[in-house]
Amino acid sequence: MALRAALRGLLSCSSHGRLCATSTSISQRNNSSSANLKVDHDQTTGVAVMHMQSPPVNSLSLDFLTEICITLDKLEMDKGCRGLIITSSQPKVFCAGLDILEMYGKSPERCGEFWKAVQEMWLKLYGSNMVTIAAINGSSPAGGCLMSITCDYRIMADNPRYSIGLNETKLGIVAPFWFKETMVNTVGHRNTETSLALGLLYKPAEALSIGLVDQLVPEDQVLSVATQTMTKWLAIPEHARQITKSMMRKSTIEKLRSNREADIQNFVNFITKESIQKSLRMYMEMLKQKKA
Amino acid sequence: MALRAALRGLLSCSSHGRLCATSTSISQRNNSSSANLKVDHDQTTGVAVMHMQSPPVNSLSLDFLTEICITLDKLEMDKGCRGLIITSSQPKVFCAGLDILEMYGKSPERCGEFWKAVQEMWLKLYGSNMVTIAAINGSSPAGGCLMSITCDYRIMADNPRYSIGLNETKLGIVAPFWFKETMVNTVGHRNTETSLALGLLYKPAEALSIGLVDQLVPEDQVLSVATQTMTKWLAIPEHARQITKSMMRKSTIEKLRSNREADIQNFVNFITKESIQKSLRMYMEMLKQKKA
Amino acid sequence: MALRAALRGLLSCSSHGRLCATSTSISQRNNSSSANLKVDHDQTTGVAVMHMQSPPVNSLSLDFLTEICITLDKLEMDKGCRGLIITSSQPKVFCAGLDILEMYGKSPERCGEFWKAVQEMWLKLYGSNMVTIAAINGSSPAGGCLMSITCDYRIMADNPRYSIGLNETKLGIVAPFWFKETMVNTVGHRNTETSLALGLLYKPAEALSIGLVDQLVPEDQVLSVATQTMTKWLAIPEHARQITKSMMRKSTIEKLRSNREADIQNFVNFITKESIQKSLRMYMEMLKQKKA
Repeated sequence: MALRAALRGLLSCSSHGRLCATSTSISQRNNSSSANLKVDHDQTTGVAVMHMQSPPVNSLSLDFLTEICITLDKLEMDKGCRGLIITSSQPKVFCAGLDILEMYGKSPERCGEFWKAVQEMWLKLYGSNMVTIAAINGSSPAGGCLMSITCDYRIMADNPRYSIGLNETKLGIVAPFWFKETMVNTVGHRNTETSLALGLLYKPAEALSIGLVDQLVPEDQVLSVATQTMTKWLAIPEHARQITKSMMRKSTIEKLRSNREADIQNFVNFITKESIQKSLRMYMEMLKQKKA
Repeated sequence: MALRAALRGLLSCSSHGRLCATSTSISQRNNSSSANLKVDHDQTTGVAVMHMQSPPVNSLSLDFLTEICITLDKLEMDKGCRGLIITSSQPKVFCAGLDILEMYGKSPERCGEFWKAVQEMWLKLYGSNMVTIAAINGSSPAGGCLMSITCDYRIMADNPRYSIGLNETKLGIVAPFWFKETMVNTVGHRNTETSLALGLLYKPAEALSIGLVDQLVPEDQVLSVATQTMTKWLAIPEHARQITKSMMRKSTIEKLRSNREADIQNFVNFITKESIQKSLRMYMEMLKQKKA
Repeated sequence: MALRAALRGLLSCSSHGRLCATSTSISQRNNSSSANLKVDHDQTTGVAVMHMQSPPVNSLSLDFLTEICITLDKLEMDKGCRGLIITSSQPKVFCAGLDILEMYGKSPERCGEFWKAVQEMWLKLYGSNMVTIAAINGSSPAGGCLMSITCDYRIMADNPRYSIGLNETKLGIVAPFWFKETMVNTVGHRNTETSLALGLLYKPAEALSIGLVDQLVPEDQVLSVATQTMTKWLAIPEHARQITKSMMRKSTIEKLRSNREADIQNFVNFITKESIQKSLRMYMEMLKQKKA
């Protein structure tokens, strides 16, 4: 964690430097990139586009989550950034969800550190003061779906080969209560119940019909429609919109915030069980055979 | 408040007198009217129709709210009144919502008094033992929408020039938690979230599709259909219906009841802010220019 | 209660014997039956089908509820039983709901005992670790609807002469908070509010449209489709599915579990009221006249 904390500090510094630099920029564009994220921040519109580019499928490893969190912190503190669009640079996938390798064969300490980072990402995204739009240009299972439903609005590519959903149960693992509550807040109790029980992945048209996404557009228009939609959202008086968003989400956020340690312990105890480790191994082997 | 309290007492007395008078009435109709309300109480059916006639657009000023609350009290205590239909006598508008003049340039004391009256109206309507039906024969933004969603049932004129919704955010102000909860109880969490974030006003067809209203009818049939619907509701065993209604609503009501003072303070602190006052001024100027 | 407790103990014993016996069975089928229940337990698939056959309409009397609870206990404890399908052997009706005769002219003690059994059935079904599917092959009012919505999935015969709903209010009685919460968890707050206020019974197509049932099939396919659906549910990793189900339902279950005595008192006080007894008598007389 020491290294990570140092990295965090370092990046905050570079962020500060960046801001100074851009004040003399002509294009008013401020493009930063780290290993797996390309952030395209248009200072004129106040909109940042975060492109996930962690090959092959934007799996949320501890390192990638840490990168995302640092970037979210920077954007959140930057008063020139009022809207965030999250999208993928990888073909066919928005985000494949939590990296299964972080949950298999790892020490309880490492599992706990990983889970804390998952919590952190959710807390930052679900509670963000920015307008957040998911430009879902590929499949978005499990943690990828979670990331999508933390946003204010979801636009998905109308491609029936893509799917979205919290399918954790299929892997033999369990979506925690805050995944569940974010889902309930999006599609209601009954849809969430069936969805989580069966680990359902929805095609875009089905996702739209239950309200899991808000809009379907042709694949090559996902980002442009997201940008247009952002303009509409940013036209709303900001302070009122932020208070309203907080009012809608604070009870859910508070429930995790006041139970983070217990939630981590719960995850670690579950995931390090012999039987769960076996489920994950079987799942990974199935994936390997699929590829072969 | 002293004057208002006196007025309240006076009207309660006149109400008593009215009841005595009507016992000898032939028509069994008991029509009372105050400055801005015409109440048409049919003692045979037990149904009162409350016509809002506060020119030009039934804005909810402190005085109008007080009138409404006094009338609701009278009807609630009158055992001969089992159903209430709320409608408008003003053309094209059901109710334009909270009177913006009560929130602009007023003392904190006056703002607090105003907010208490808004709470009072909501508490009386959302918790009424009567069957309440909104006969929405015109546009119904903000507080007008709130009034509608406190009722048991909503019938709206199928005229695409009308709209309904909690659009407070557009004005730079924030719907309080009990507006929000009434909306969630009507259209669910996700519809409420988008709706409040963007300050959406819905055309009748859209309002029907998300469940914000229950039925659309041609404009000239709003009141007659409301009357027919009332007959159906009044056929239900009364005691069971009232307990059921209370069971559905009491947790929401209790949340405001036990937090009224804090909610008032919260409103007063917010609305008297320099920035919010500026937003309201800009909004009023925009309205003026629209008219001119 | 002593007799019942003894009976319960006895049946648990016989259940144990049954398991030993079936271990040598060739067909791997284990059909048990009591007076009003026929349970067809296929040990190969791990699926039990519980046929309700309490003439004429599977009314939930204290005795029938006790039988159901004992059977549910046995199946729950039997590790060879992972799925339960509930259906009816009576023509045209799935279950007519709580037996009105248990609520009319009975002592407070007896009413309390009855209510405790209703709670017990709900607790066992809503909290079951088994996958539960309601194969609704006939009308399912009041308690029959409750039984249906405690299940994980509902398949109904697509016959417009059948209906389903919590219509208690029509009888002058009130669905308790846990009926209400199960309904809210199924069809949302607003549908529940209207539905309970008016005591609505829904035709299959309407029930499907609000999500009160999940699927309509031709009448002669209800059981076969239920069996196919069960296969799909049983393919999900069991431990993950059970934890997920518990997460979705435990707050509702906990609310009753920690308030059972108060809920019983509440029911007994209400149902033994003179006015309520009169409502029930009128309702029974109406039913008699309908038949004659």
